[in-house]
Amino acid sequence: MRASNLLISTLKETPADAEIVSHQLMLRAGLIRRLASGLYTWLPMGLKVLRKTEAIVREEMDRAGAQEVLMPSVQPAELWQESQRWEKYGPELLRITDRHQREFCYGPTHEEVITDLVRQEIRSYKQLPVNFYQIQTKFRDEIRPRFGLMRAREFLMKDAYSFHLDQASLQETYDNMYATYSRIFSRIGLEFRAVQADTGSIGGNASHEFHVLASSGEDAIAFSDKSDYAANVELAEAVAPQGERAAASETMTVVETPAKHTIDDVSQYLNKPASQCLKTLLVEGVEEGSVVALVVRGDHELNEIKAEKHPLVAAPLTFVTAEKVLEISHANIGSVGPVGLTIPVIVDHAAAFVSDFVCGANQDDKHLTGVNWGRDLPEPETADLRKVMAGDPSPDGQGHLEIARGIEVGHIFQLGENYSSKLNAVVLTESGKSQIVTMGCYGIGVSRVVAAAIEQNHDDRGIIWPESIAPYQVVLVPVNAHKSVRVKEKAEEVYQQLLAAGVDVLLDDRGLRPGVAFADMELIGIPHRLILGERGLDNGMIEYKNRRSGDGEEFAIYDVVNIIKQKLS
Amino acid sequence: MRASNLLISTLKETPADAEIVSHQLMLRAGLIRRLASGLYTWLPMGLKVLRKTEAIVREEMDRAGAQEVLMPSVQPAELWQESQRWEKYGPELLRITDRHQREFCYGPTHEEVITDLVRQEIRSYKQLPVNFYQIQTKFRDEIRPRFGLMRAREFLMKDAYSFHLDQASLQETYDNMYATYSRIFSRIGLEFRAVQADTGSIGGNASHEFHVLASSGEDAIAFSDKSDYAANVELAEAVAPQGERAAASETMTVVETPAKHTIDDVSQYLNKPASQCLKTLLVEGVEEGSVVALVVRGDHELNEIKAEKHPLVAAPLTFVTAEKVLEISHANIGSVGPVGLTIPVIVDHAAAFVSDFVCGANQDDKHLTGVNWGRDLPEPETADLRKVMAGDPSPDGQGHLEIARGIEVGHIFQLGENYSSKLNAVVLTESGKSQIVTMGCYGIGVSRVVAAAIEQNHDDRGIIWPESIAPYQVVLVPVNAHKSVRVKEKAEEVYQQLLAAGVDVLLDDRGLRPGVAFADMELIGIPHRLILGERGLDNGMIEYKNRRSGDGEEFAIYDVVNIIKQKLS
Repeated sequence: MRASNLLISTLKETPADAEIVSHQLMLRAGLIRRLASGLYTWLPMGLKVLRKTEAIVREEMDRAGAQEVLMPSVQPAELWQESQRWEKYGPELLRITDRHQREFCYGPTHEEVITDLVRQEIRSYKQLPVNFYQIQTKFRDEIRPRFGLMRAREFLMKDAYSFHLDQASLQETYDNMYATYSRIFSRIGLEFRAVQADTGSIGGNASHEFHVLASSGEDAIAFSDKSDYAANVELAEAVAPQGERAAASETMTVVETPAKHTIDDVSQYLNKPASQCLKTLLVEGVEEGSVVALVVRGDHELNEIKAEKHPLVAAPLTFVTAEKVLEISHANIGSVGPVGLTIPVIVDHAAAFVSDFVCGANQDDKHLTGVNWGRDLPEPETADLRKVMAGDPSPDGQGHLEIARGIEVGHIFQLGENYSSKLNAVVLTESGKSQIVTMGCYGIGVSRVVAAAIEQNHDDRGIIWPESIAPYQVVLVPVNAHKSVRVKEKAEEVYQQLLAAGVDVLLDDRGLRPGVAFADMELIGIPHRLILGERGLDNGMIEYKNRRSGDGEEFAIYDVVNIIKQKLS
Repeated sequence: MRASNLLISTLKETPADAEIVSHQLMLRAGLIRRLASGLYTWLPMGLKVLRKTEAIVREEMDRAGAQEVLMPSVQPAELWQESQRWEKYGPELLRITDRHQREFCYGPTHEEVITDLVRQEIRSYKQLPVNFYQIQTKFRDEIRPRFGLMRAREFLMKDAYSFHLDQASLQETYDNMYATYSRIFSRIGLEFRAVQADTGSIGGNASHEFHVLASSGEDAIAFSDKSDYAANVELAEAVAPQGERAAASETMTVVETPAKHTIDDVSQYLNKPASQCLKTLLVEGVEEGSVVALVVRGDHELNEIKAEKHPLVAAPLTFVTAEKVLEISHANIGSVGPVGLTIPVIVDHAAAFVSDFVCGANQDDKHLTGVNWGRDLPEPETADLRKVMAGDPSPDGQGHLEIARGIEVGHIFQLGENYSSKLNAVVLTESGKSQIVTMGCYGIGVSRVVAAAIEQNHDDRGIIWPESIAPYQVVLVPVNAHKSVRVKEKAEEVYQQLLAAGVDVLLDDRGLRPGVAFADMELIGIPHRLILGERGLDNGMIEYKNRRSGDGEEFAIYDVVNIIKQKLS
């Protein structure tokens, strides 16, 4: 492509309303433009990236045996009423009334439509399993659209839905989709993790989120440095310490801790590591009016999601009032401890492993030191109550956890019979009985992948595209071609050679000053840059620069096709 | 693709609500399924056709130098208010209110959005001309959706918009798009005509419709048998007869024509050809209360669109009441004629060329014979008032007109400054002045092309796809493979050979009875069928049948790849 035939709308300034890097760079590089809140037009340069991403997704879904369909974006309310989501879904569902006053929505997802199709077209177990997908514009009426395409209202989505006679078949397709998603994100060239996820409002049994790692990510992810294990930090299991607890070596002693209410204060004041000071937190119990004490190490953080799953603890997790703390422990918050409490005490595995620990004395401005489980108070009831930390052993027994931030770009679910039972999607089994089908669903936010790729791949000069989805693989910049016929002619020759060799090359024939052209191409993020000028031409040489490494080199013009093809492969 | 991995949902019965062939066959062949009124899901087999059609459109638009973009489907009301279409557009525009009570629409077309983009991104004449296109789902809230995808509410559209400094540049891109559309429909393999069109409500200067010829078409088209000339029958010029009118040879005579009111009656009764009997029609004139007489040959039909464009005639064309006819001509309808009328008389070119003609005598049940212009009444004021007929000379002087029915699948417009002036889309000219840009727009109904292709290409057994958009080029049917290992193995071998040769082949491994499988594949319309059975295998032969011609042949299995590749090229 010749740059003179392409809308290249780069901006020098960072638009004020763009808060995150991908949004800023997509605007600055001229990939997208805002039409209205949460609505963006893809300009030619950006659409090339989107289409390349879409093509990889489509190829891998086809390879996995999924069948592409295209469902209407506008869906009748009746189906959503059947699944009971019409009322439940909330205002993110863009509801529409047509000219005949019939109700519809602009689909944010298509479980109802595909289940309706399947209950009509699939009658026999012989037709199962089946996996349908589509790549389609979806709409979610976000209350506060932001971050450009990361949280837009209109976005491109790949959604897939599989149907099965039994759980084993669902699991097989689920595993296939897990592998397919891994291939897709690997092929695009992204660093990602498949993360065990909560199934949330959509319901169902098993679920993984696929996160692109990036410091700007909304979610913290814990993953093993030695295996594929990854989980949302909120959900990752904190492995209980192995082996024997150290024997008690101190005597339990009451010490004065005047005005020392935080772990840091107490730890410093008593010169004990935070890991040896235990925190005691009082929360509402599941029985009306009851209170439960939760104990974690001072250097650990209570995981509220884990805590509220404990059978004795009320969900959502609710800390009791200051008055209640005083009533139960006879001390104010900051001096509470497990010794002598008459309410249930649940202790995190790691806290239960500490000997000679420090804790509140249940007297204001006093703490206990040298406390030991099984001696100064009963052996505790233990549970996993804390958030994992970097360096914790990985729950799968392989390696240790690292923690990074991630952007969710894909999600796979085992929905089970959630939709198929409500919509009565049945097939005849081999024995001729009617049976509800079981279902999985699999999404990729295609436009979000593009934004996430930028979050992961950029520097202060702009985007650094993975080659697989770069708008162009190579840009060829002739220097001062308007002044030099031979530069212009040679550039044209090299351009044609690269095109003929199947290289996706952009010829920057805009006649800009070299510095301006270079800055544009670095902002846009073309992986490979060739520069052809008078000086090099004298020696038959062409300059090359790699966008990611910044490394430059020179090589003979006659060799350009070979060398570029090597670099691309 | 193996048929066992593909949803093939053929129907034996024609669905009751499908009125036209393409709708019936798309349902029966399992290409689409109805979700709600005017909303269809594309099943895997249908989507393959749609995607192939889309790919051809995209390739040719790219080749023509147009740049692909993707605009939001949901558009803010403000832009439509700026162009004054928010109120004008009518209830086909699906209006949407978001959660913040802001008004939007689901775009049926994107003139406003693209003009808004251009006024922000294009500042200089140097950036012009530019041509942006997108391939996108659009929505039109038809009052009575029908005919399947031919008049659906949601449909796939290729829309393009070009911007220019002047009319000459617009004309150049318009001509380019004309040629591009011709290439697109030729490549798809459709018989089509580019038809001069009225510019209708969208406004502007010049416009062509592209029609796929099919007997079920909504529009009648006149086209030359010798040139590219084509026009809607309503708009095609009826060329005035050349040369001298024959000299008068009869005397004007009043004859009794009791109860003969129609041209057919009179022509038969007087034994004169209808072409020699003139019809006189009284219509309202442009001046309040005035009446104008329009005269056409008895074998010709008044073209109301042409008539109402005459400066003396009121638009819309309105025939005067029976009382008014009597008041003006002193006779009832059926006996009116031009002789002696005191109102303006406008005569079609062909009627003015007739000598010794018959016409109403302005007395009930009487006609005049042997009437001659310039002798019995003044030489007439002439105009083009009639519809063209098959056999008329082509207006471009080349050949004669044929008339066929067509389905509009594409439309190109010169919009001029219609939108750009309302939205104030200006650029700086070479001399530094601000100038409104001029604009063209170019649409193809991609999903409609698929339906039109079926209307043009089918027989009583089903669809006959043009090879370019067939879901599969070749189907290979092994006969009774479940009973014969060697048939199964050989079929697999041939299937792999064809795949390796890049042939888009479907292996029908469903194990159906041969007749059922053949009927399915004929209904679906795969262009080439291969049949492999025990009998052929004995002689090393494979059977072939062409879907379109119905011709069958046998050839050696070892030669199958070569022969199929020949047939495909």
